[in-house]
Amino acid sequence: MTQDRGYLDRLAARSAAVGSVLCLGLDPDPAALPPGFSSDLTGVERFARLVLEAALPYAAAVKPNLAFYEAFGSAGLAALERLRATIPADAPVLIDAKRGDIGPTAARQAVAIAECLGADAVTLNPYLGRDAVAPFLERGIGFVYVLCRTSNPAAAELQNLRVGGDTVQGWPEEALFARVARTAAGWAGPERLGFVVGATAPEELAAIRDLVPDRAFLVPGVGAQGGDLAAALREGPVRSGSGGTSRPGGGLLLNVSRGIAGAAGDPSGGPAANDLQIRIAQAAAEWAAKMPVLS
Amino acid sequence: MTQDRGYLDRLAARSAAVGSVLCLGLDPDPAALPPGFSSDLTGVERFARLVLEAALPYAAAVKPNLAFYEAFGSAGLAALERLRATIPADAPVLIDAKRGDIGPTAARQAVAIAECLGADAVTLNPYLGRDAVAPFLERGIGFVYVLCRTSNPAAAELQNLRVGGDTVQGWPEEALFARVARTAAGWAGPERLGFVVGATAPEELAAIRDLVPDRAFLVPGVGAQGGDLAAALREGPVRSGSGGTSRPGGGLLLNVSRGIAGAAGDPSGGPAANDLQIRIAQAAAEWAAKMPVLS
Repeated sequence: MTQDRGYLDRLAARSAAVGSVLCLGLDPDPAALPPGFSSDLTGVERFARLVLEAALPYAAAVKPNLAFYEAFGSAGLAALERLRATIPADAPVLIDAKRGDIGPTAARQAVAIAECLGADAVTLNPYLGRDAVAPFLERGIGFVYVLCRTSNPAAAELQNLRVGGDTVQGWPEEALFARVARTAAGWAGPERLGFVVGATAPEELAAIRDLVPDRAFLVPGVGAQGGDLAAALREGPVRSGSGGTSRPGGGLLLNVSRGIAGAAGDPSGGPAANDLQIRIAQAAAEWAAKMPVLS
Repeated sequence: MTQDRGYLDRLAARSAAVGSVLCLGLDPDPAALPPGFSSDLTGVERFARLVLEAALPYAAAVKPNLAFYEAFGSAGLAALERLRATIPADAPVLIDAKRGDIGPTAARQAVAIAECLGADAVTLNPYLGRDAVAPFLERGIGFVYVLCRTSNPAAAELQNLRVGGDTVQGWPEEALFARVARTAAGWAGPERLGFVVGATAPEELAAIRDLVPDRAFLVPGVGAQGGDLAAALREGPVRSGSGGTSRPGGGLLLNVSRGIAGAAGDPSGGPAANDLQIRIAQAAAEWAAKMPVLS
C-alpha cells in the first residue's frame, strides 16, 4: 500500500509506538494448530485471526508468508486477502513471497503483491539479478528485502561459496552472500531496498552489516529456529553515522512466527494462561520485550 | 499429479505423440490481449482458454506461470485452477513458480503446487539450497526444474560470477551457474531433477550440458526473448550414452509463451487467418515444427 510517508518512516513510527522491533510472522500451519481448531482452511483462518488480534499490539510489522495460504489454493489466498484487510494502516505489512522472475513476470508479481495484498514491503530472491527486483519498486511496493543470507540449515550450500574479486568495482574475493549485498545495494537506495539476513548465521550477519551499514535488515530465525538474538540486536540496526537516516529501531525487524503461534498449544502456560488469546499475547509481549527499541 | 509412470516417461510419450518438444507457456498478460478481450480477469481467462485449446495439440507440455494469475488475487488463482482442470492427463503440467524457501515453508508450497494445482513438475530457485527443493520431491511433485542460467538480460549479474574451486569435490573454479548445476545434481537423481537454462545464453547452455549430460532441460527464451533455437536444439536434449535414459525428445522442453499468444493480435496473418483460434494454432504448429522430436 503506497503511503505518503516512506516505508522506513512508517516502520520507525510503529516501532516507536510499540517499543519493539518484533515482526509478527503469520504462517499458520494446519499441522500445528492448538486443540479446538480444525486442520482445514476454516481452522487455519480462525487461528491466524486469533494470533493477529492477540499479538498485533506488540508488533512493529506483520509478515504473512504466502505459502501458508496458497497451500489451500484460491480459497486460501482469499482468506489472506480477508486477513490483510483487518490489519490497521499504521502496522506495515510485509508479504514474505521470496519471488524472483524475469522482468515481465516480475511486473505481474508486483501487481499481485502490491495491489491484491496491499503490501508495504516484500521479500525477493536475488538469483535472477536486478530485472527481478526493479518492477516491484516501480509498481507501488514501498520497500524490498532481498534475500542475502537465509536462516535455513542448507543456506550456506550456495550462499557461502567464495566468489572471485571484481577489479572494476574494487571488490575482494568474498562469500556469495557478501557479493549479493554489494550488488543488490546498487539496485536501489537504502530507503527502498534492504536485506534478509538470518539470525542463525551471526558471523555472516556481522559481515553483512559491515558491508552495508545503512541498509534495513529483516532478520528471521530468532524464534523456533534458535538463532542468535543478541547478535541480531547488536548487528541488526542500521549503523549511526553510516549515511542511513537514524530512526527508532534502526530499520530493524526481528521475525518470530512459530515462537508466538506455538505458545497457543504450550501446556506449560500455568493456570492463569488457560485462554489461547492470553497465551499468545503473553508470548508476543515476551518476545517484544526481548527486542526493544533502544533510544 | 502423481502418476504411476515417472514424469520423464510421460513427457516422452507426449513428445512422441505430438512430434515436438514445444512447451506451451500460458502467461496471459492483460496488456497484450487481442481486440475483443477485456483486460480484466474475465478477458484474461477467456483468452488463456482459447490459447490452450488452440495450441494444446502441438504441445508436449503446458506451463502456466503463477504470477499471471496471482496478479488477479484469489479470483485469478481460482481461474488457474479451472484452467488446469481442463488440461487432459496425457499433457504434463509444469507450474512455473520459481519458489525457494526454508523447509517448513517449502513443504506448504509443495502442497499448493502439487495438490491444489495438480502439477506434474515445478520450477524452483536454488539460492536457499537443498532445503528449498527436497519437500517438493517428498510431496507428490514428479519432477523439479532448478533455475540454473535464466534467460533475462540481468541473469549474468550473479549467475555468471566466478566461484572458487572445491578441493573436496574436485570441482574447478567456475561460474556460479555451473556450480549450481553440479551442486543441485546432488539433490536428486536425473529422473526427478533437471534445470532451467535460457536459450538467450547459448554458451552457458552448452557448458551446462557438458557438466550434466543426463539432466532434462527446460529452455525458455526461444520465442519473444529472441534466444538461440539452434543451440537449444543441439545442446538441449540429454546426451545419449550419458547414463540418462534415452527417450523421445531427450527430456527437452523448449518454452514459447508470448510467441504463440502474440499471434492472436498479429495483423500479418493474412486473409485466411482472420480467426483468432486459427492464428494461434498456426503459430503453435509453426513453433512445434521448428522443434521436432528427432528419431
